Amino acid sequence: MKAYLKSIVEYNDNRLSRGFAFFIQFLIVLSVITFSLETLPSLEPRTKVVLQSIEIFCVVVFTLEYLARIYVADQKLRFIFSFFGIIDLLAILPFYLSFGVDLRSLRVLRMFRLFRLLKLVRYNRAMRHFSKAMLLAKEQIILFMAITLVLIYFAAVGIYYFENEAQPEHFSSIFDSLWWSIVTLTTVGYGDVYPITVGGRIFTFFILLIGLGIVAIPTGIISSSLTKVVESKGELE
Amino acid sequence: MKAYLKSIVEYNDNRLSRGFAFFIQFLIVLSVITFSLETLPSLEPRTKVVLQSIEIFCVVVFTLEYLARIYVADQKLRFIFSFFGIIDLLAILPFYLSFGVDLRSLRVLRMFRLFRLLKLVRYNRAMRHFSKAMLLAKEQIILFMAITLVLIYFAAVGIYYFENEAQPEHFSSIFDSLWWSIVTLTTVGYGDVYPITVGGRIFTFFILLIGLGIVAIPTGIISSSLTKVVESKGELE
Amino acid sequence: MKAYLKSIVEYNDNRLSRGFAFFIQFLIVLSVITFSLETLPSLEPRTKVVLQSIEIFCVVVFTLEYLARIYVADQKLRFIFSFFGIIDLLAILPFYLSFGVDLRSLRVLRMFRLFRLLKLVRYNRAMRHFSKAMLLAKEQIILFMAITLVLIYFAAVGIYYFENEAQPEHFSSIFDSLWWSIVTLTTVGYGDVYPITVGGRIFTFFILLIGLGIVAIPTGIISSSLTKVVESKGELE
Amino acid sequence: MKAYLKSIVEYNDNRLSRGFAFFIQFLIVLSVITFSLETLPSLEPRTKVVLQSIEIFCVVVFTLEYLARIYVADQKLRFIFSFFGIIDLLAILPFYLSFGVDLRSLRVLRMFRLFRLLKLVRYNRAMRHFSKAMLLAKEQIILFMAITLVLIYFAAVGIYYFENEAQPEHFSSIFDSLWWSIVTLTTVGYGDVYPITVGGRIFTFFILLIGLGIVAIPTGIISSSLTKVVESKGELE
Repeated sequence: MKAYLKSIVEYNDNRLSRGFAFFIQFLIVLSVITFSLETLPSLEPRTKVVLQSIEIFCVVVFTLEYLARIYVADQKLRFIFSFFGIIDLLAILPFYLSFGVDLRSLRVLRMFRLFRLLKLVRYNRAMRHFSKAMLLAKEQIILFMAITLVLIYFAAVGIYYFENEAQPEHFSSIFDSLWWSIVTLTTVGYGDVYPITVGGRIFTFFILLIGLGIVAIPTGIISSSLTKVVESKGELE
Repeated sequence: MKAYLKSIVEYNDNRLSRGFAFFIQFLIVLSVITFSLETLPSLEPRTKVVLQSIEIFCVVVFTLEYLARIYVADQKLRFIFSFFGIIDLLAILPFYLSFGVDLRSLRVLRMFRLFRLLKLVRYNRAMRHFSKAMLLAKEQIILFMAITLVLIYFAAVGIYYFENEAQPEHFSSIFDSLWWSIVTLTTVGYGDVYPITVGGRIFTFFILLIGLGIVAIPTGIISSSLTKVVESKGELE
Repeated sequence: MKAYLKSIVEYNDNRLSRGFAFFIQFLIVLSVITFSLETLPSLEPRTKVVLQSIEIFCVVVFTLEYLARIYVADQKLRFIFSFFGIIDLLAILPFYLSFGVDLRSLRVLRMFRLFRLLKLVRYNRAMRHFSKAMLLAKEQIILFMAITLVLIYFAAVGIYYFENEAQPEHFSSIFDSLWWSIVTLTTVGYGDVYPITVGGRIFTFFILLIGLGIVAIPTGIISSSLTKVVESKGELE
Repeated sequence: MKAYLKSIVEYNDNRLSRGFAFFIQFLIVLSVITFSLETLPSLEPRTKVVLQSIEIFCVVVFTLEYLARIYVADQKLRFIFSFFGIIDLLAILPFYLSFGVDLRSLRVLRMFRLFRLLKLVRYNRAMRHFSKAMLLAKEQIILFMAITLVLIYFAAVGIYYFENEAQPEHFSSIFDSLWWSIVTLTTVGYGDVYPITVGGRIFTFFILLIGLGIVAIPTGIISSSLTKVVESKGELE
């Protein structure tokens, strides 16, 4: 019995285990759609009941899946404290905790339901590649994130000195200026804050010329690390 | 007779077939320009008549071309259901269907006239390269599109929790927040919606640092796949 | 005498010719700065006189340089109709033509003074690398520019059908929609026009996911072509 | 004694020197946070006193560190005029100068306190990689910065001629137009200035198609130079 359940749950290449994996993935996506629909401001009571029923069904299945995984695991404690064990627990915990708490905390708890999305990593090849790539390049990403942060801070201080007097409402402190430097150096440029003084504009010019190259580095590292993982997938899997 | 027509239509290296190909390309571009001009809000009746005459002429030629291609094809049914056979049909079908329908559906039908642009693929080398590149990297593009979609959804949920109370008109549900996360993570940044709370801004900062690298991946895959196709064009063509 | 002049003008490795080249470059930059200053809306008459004097001095030197280059050229006609010969002529022609024309055309003529900037190509290594790179990748750039144009047109037609009814003032015809699709697909995103319907936003999402990869291709081609030129500069120069 | 101090200050691999390095880094970050907090518009007097005390403490430690470094240096003058010697001096100088000057100059002096951030370069591997990469590619970066500047100027002149008459308040001179061309070619696109004439929009289209490729070149050079430095770190360090 345990061996049979293990063959289904731990994804070997038979038809039943594939069906099971597909079913769980379907429930994850369904659960996420339900979660999104619940945020719609004007929902009819009937729709709410339907959404809650789907939610309860998903949680029951996820709980059974979690218990089954513990049951079939050779080292039970090791599974519970593994990456996927914790994710599986976080995916159901918010539902059970919501019975014992007041309404204010409920809001935060509901947000944690999103951890279910991470359950997809187990089944999705792209996600697996991606998490491997992040691990491979971890040290480099941290190192160059540091440079990016220093540059963003530098830009914020500079623009603060140029624009603070001209636009005290937008550049009231370095923390406000940081918002500008993030939005500008990533080239998002919402247009809610921008320099208006000549000095501030010339400073923006130089910061952009240098900064674009620097902000692009972590991006480049993630991309090249992913390419390596995808190309060597035969060896790693 | 049939062999002669075949030599013209199916693009062998004689002068007449080149002239024919050039003529069809010219009509495609002319037809697209006509299509654009028809959308101008204040057109004189005389201009309308001229534009419609050009449209009728183009459709007649495209129809004759389509019939000729069926006539010269060795396996007629195979051509009709091939990629180019369907494109050729879609390029003329909206015109003929427009006689039998009421005005409301006409609007959608006219839009389908744009499929003519895809007829250019047959004649344009860059387009052929591009469609080959997309086929080559199909699996990878789908895999990483999935990651991109998950990230965009993640960003939308996060910003919803931070900004929903402060700006209920812009972040009324997760579906509204999705618009923000698309516009931000592609760095378009129209400036119609942006976070105003401190939490939302810090969240935006981290999402941008991580997200830019991820959204850039499908872009990188298409680019590198195209480079491969262009470099090996001697072998593939 | 002619050989001596030739050694100065045609840039051999002696001190005098280097001084001459530096002097001409200095005048080009000076002339461009003068040109910029003249556009300032509220100039004092005295400043205007100074700027005009500098302009006359520059033109006189450029004219003498042009005549000297013709004089020392072995094949005079070939120089006159060469790339640099035409640029040298265009750099001084607007000044002489401005005597014989009325004030309205003057505006356009003054703009042509900017061609002087192209004179820098002769002296600037980066510029030479860049024009070589453009020539190397000419065919590829044209091919993928075509794809980019088709995509931009496609996006414009799509958004026209989604947004025309909701925002007739911003998306009045396909030509207006083209402005939107250029600003969006290059991720500039000024925020003057953006979709507001649900259909338009979903369409924008898909166009951005596909489009960013395509618009980045000509950029990538220019960059990689430049890298090749810079790396092989020993062989080419 | 001197040898012992030297072993701590000049970062050899013993526990005490690592602790010293960590302590200095901690003070740099603390000093920068203090600096940011001081810019908050409404601070209580008590908070100000705390912030100033931290500042004085940091300066005292940095001064002792500076003196210790001079003391242990074999060639004292060489250290004083080295890159890190100057940075260390600039990190403390603003504090001492602020006693002898009036309030107006104080503002600028305080800004120079930010030079402390550069002290991190000594301790941070990513920063060292980065400054090496900049030195390696120095010549290329300068060359292509020149092209970028010419292109930005070109775009500014073009848009000035198209938009000056239609929007004299935004495009009053070439210097105002330069702001537009910087914001557009880096794809930041705040939306404070944008072309409204048909000519200006078509010009923007072509400038964007060509310009994005060119502005991306210095970015690409910095990235590829950094990759080289990181990959060959074993050899260089």
